[in-house]
Amino acid sequence: MEISNRIRGFQASPIRRLSPYARAAKERGIKVYHLNIGQPDIRSPKEAIEAIHSYPNDIIAYGESDGDLALRKALVKYYHDYVDVDITVDDILITTGGSEAILFSLMTLCDPGDEIIVPEPYYTNVHSFARMANVSIVPVTSTLEDNFALPPLSLIEERITSKTRAILLNSPNNPTGHIYSPKELETIIGMCRDHDIFLIMDEVYREFCYDNQKFTSVLKYTDCNERIICIDSVSKRFSMCGARVGALICRNRNVIRETLKLSQARLCSPTVEQYASLAAFGAPPAYLENVKAEYEKRRNFIVKALRSIPGVKCSRPNGAFYLIARLPVEDAEDFSIFMLRDFSYNGETVMLAPAEGFYESKDLGRDQVRIAYVLNTDDLEKACICLKEGLKAYNNRTF
Amino acid sequence: MEISNRIRGFQASPIRRLSPYARAAKERGIKVYHLNIGQPDIRSPKEAIEAIHSYPNDIIAYGESDGDLALRKALVKYYHDYVDVDITVDDILITTGGSEAILFSLMTLCDPGDEIIVPEPYYTNVHSFARMANVSIVPVTSTLEDNFALPPLSLIEERITSKTRAILLNSPNNPTGHIYSPKELETIIGMCRDHDIFLIMDEVYREFCYDNQKFTSVLKYTDCNERIICIDSVSKRFSMCGARVGALICRNRNVIRETLKLSQARLCSPTVEQYASLAAFGAPPAYLENVKAEYEKRRNFIVKALRSIPGVKCSRPNGAFYLIARLPVEDAEDFSIFMLRDFSYNGETVMLAPAEGFYESKDLGRDQVRIAYVLNTDDLEKACICLKEGLKAYNNRTF
Repeated sequence: MEISNRIRGFQASPIRRLSPYARAAKERGIKVYHLNIGQPDIRSPKEAIEAIHSYPNDIIAYGESDGDLALRKALVKYYHDYVDVDITVDDILITTGGSEAILFSLMTLCDPGDEIIVPEPYYTNVHSFARMANVSIVPVTSTLEDNFALPPLSLIEERITSKTRAILLNSPNNPTGHIYSPKELETIIGMCRDHDIFLIMDEVYREFCYDNQKFTSVLKYTDCNERIICIDSVSKRFSMCGARVGALICRNRNVIRETLKLSQARLCSPTVEQYASLAAFGAPPAYLENVKAEYEKRRNFIVKALRSIPGVKCSRPNGAFYLIARLPVEDAEDFSIFMLRDFSYNGETVMLAPAEGFYESKDLGRDQVRIAYVLNTDDLEKACICLKEGLKAYNNRTF
Repeated sequence: MEISNRIRGFQASPIRRLSPYARAAKERGIKVYHLNIGQPDIRSPKEAIEAIHSYPNDIIAYGESDGDLALRKALVKYYHDYVDVDITVDDILITTGGSEAILFSLMTLCDPGDEIIVPEPYYTNVHSFARMANVSIVPVTSTLEDNFALPPLSLIEERITSKTRAILLNSPNNPTGHIYSPKELETIIGMCRDHDIFLIMDEVYREFCYDNQKFTSVLKYTDCNERIICIDSVSKRFSMCGARVGALICRNRNVIRETLKLSQARLCSPTVEQYASLAAFGAPPAYLENVKAEYEKRRNFIVKALRSIPGVKCSRPNGAFYLIARLPVEDAEDFSIFMLRDFSYNGETVMLAPAEGFYESKDLGRDQVRIAYVLNTDDLEKACICLKEGLKAYNNRTF
C-alpha cells in the first residue's frame, strides 16, 4: 500500500506548490498578483478564438497520433518564414504541450539510471519529468553574477559519464531569461558530437528576444541533425497555455519513428485545440511583434522596479519573460508563504515561485525567487509595491 | 546515439500500427471501414459542441493541475446520479484522457521492475504505458471459449510476487466486451486485500452494458477505498475521444496528493475541451440511453454477421463496443495488411486490429482480431461483406 520511490520524496513543482495558500488568500478577499506562473494576460490570436467558435465537426474525434497534418504543415511554413529553418512534416510530432515533448524525449533517449546534464537554474518541471522517467539530472551551475551565461565547457564536460545521454538546454531560458549565443550553441553542439550524446533544446520562448537580439535556432546546425531534438509549443507564442499543443522536432527519423510509439499509446493530442492552434499560425506577423514589444516594455519596467527595492538583486534578462531575483531573506519559500498567508497591502499581495526548486544542487537558490513578468505594467507596479512592503513587513516581523 | 531499451523492441500499438497501409489504400481511392479503433461515428452531445462554439474567454489559459473545479463537481453529480456512488471533488484528478490516468497510476504505484497483473487479452496501450514506466505486465489468460471471464482466482494468485503492486482490470472490457460480475469483483478485491496490493479499475465503458445487465462500479466497495483507483474518461461516454479529458478517482488521499505532483509537472489538461466536457455532463439522460441502444443494436448485428462467415468465431460480448474474433487464418496481422494493401471489394475494404498485441503471452491471439463495432449497421454490413470476401481471397491467394 505504498507509493513508489519514483514519486516519494520529490517535491511538487514550486510553480504550483503554494497554490493552496493563494486560494485561501483569495477566499479571504485578497487580490493575488500571480508572478509565479508564466500565464500571460495577453489575448490569444483572434484567429484561434474564432476557429474554436466555428469548430466545424459534430464529433470530437481522435486525431492522428503524430498530430494533425494541416497543423504540421503550418509548422513547416512557420519555421521557414519565422525561424529561417527548413523542416518537413516528417520531422514533427505534435505533442500534448511542450511538457509531453520533454517527457517523450527523456523516455526515448534514456533508460532508468541514465543521466542528462542540465544547466541550473532550469525549468523546474523537467525535474518531475526526469523522476517520471527515472532519469538523473546532473546539474552544472550558472550564476546571477554571470547573468546566467553557459558555464565554462570544461565544467560541463567533466559531468559527462558513460550514463550521459543528452544535455538539455532552454533558450531563451526559463527561469533566467538568458539567450544562448551562436558561439555558445556551437560549443555545445561540438561537445555533443565529441561525446556522442544528444542535445535537447527547448525553444518555446524563441519569439521573445529583446534589445534587438536575433535568435538562432539550434535547427540551423544541420550538420548535427541526427543528435538534435527541438521542443516547441504554442503555449507562450500565442498565449495559449491551456491548449496543451506542442511539438517534438527532430530530423533523426529513427527518433521520430520510435517516439511515435509513445504518441500512439496515448492516441492523440487534443483535437479542438489543435484546430485552434492551426488557426493561430495564421495570425498576422503584427500579433507576435506586438506581444514581443509588450513583454520588452514589461521587462524594462520590472527590472527597474525590482532594483529599486532595497536588498533585491536581479539580472537584466534579454529573453523569455522570467527572471531570477535574489531577495533580502534567508528562505524565499518561507517568505513566499508569508506573502500569501500572513500579508496583504491595500488588500493585495503577490504569489512568487521560490527558486530553490529550479536548482538541482542542494542549498542553491534558497534566497531567490522566479518572477514571471506576464502582467501588464500597471499590475506589475502594484505587485512590486506589495513585494517591497512585504519584504519590510517580513524582515520586521516578531513571530 | 542509440534509442533507449525502454522503447526499442516493443511494437507500436496494433490499433494504429497499420495506419500507413490504410492511408495508402485511401490514396488509391479505396474506402476503408475502420473497425480497428474505437472511434464512434456517434455525435458528441450538442451541449458540448455548443459550449465550444460559445467558449467565453479570449485567452486559452492554464487551468488547475487537478482539473477544472466545475468539471470535478459535475463528475461528483454524475457519479451520484448515474453510478450510484458518492465521491467528493477531492477524490478526483482530471487527466489528459483515461490514457494519462493509467500512466499516472502505474508511475504512482510502481518503481522500475515492479509488476502488475493483467488478464489478457487486455487494452493493448497499457503495454506501452507499462514500458514507459518500466513496469512489467504479468498476464493471466482468459479465453474466447470461456467468454473471456475472469480466470480462476488460483491462477491469478500464483502470479503474485513480492514485486506485484496492483492488478489492473477493465470492465466492460476492451477488447473482449466482458463485464466483471459483482462476484468476480468481490473475489478480486478480497485478493487485493489479502495480498496488500492495489486494484486499478478502468471503467470508461460503464455506460455500455447490454441485455439489461446492470453495471456495478468498483467504487461501491467502500471498505477497500484506500486500495482502489478508478479510471474514467469522457472519450467513449460522450463520443469525445479527441477531447483528451479523463479522470483518476481514488479515495486514498495519499495517492491523490502524490499523483498531483505528476499533474503539476504537466500543468493542466486541455482547457477548452474541459469546458466542453463540463457541458457534456449536462446532456439529458436520453443521450446516453440512445447511444447505448444504438451500440446494442450494432452488437446484435455484428455478432450475427461475423458468425455467418465461414470459419469465423466470436463471443457475444455484453459490454463496451469491441469483440475478439478468431479468423480462419494463421496470421491475422498478415491478413489485416493484405486487406489494406492487396484487397478491395467494390472499391472498399476493412481495417482490423490484429489481436496478438492485446496479449502479453507469446503466440497467443495470432489468429484473432479485435473488432470495434463503432460504425452504423449499414456500414457494418458492408464491412462484414468485405471481411467475408477478403477471407475468401486471402485463403485462395497464390502468392
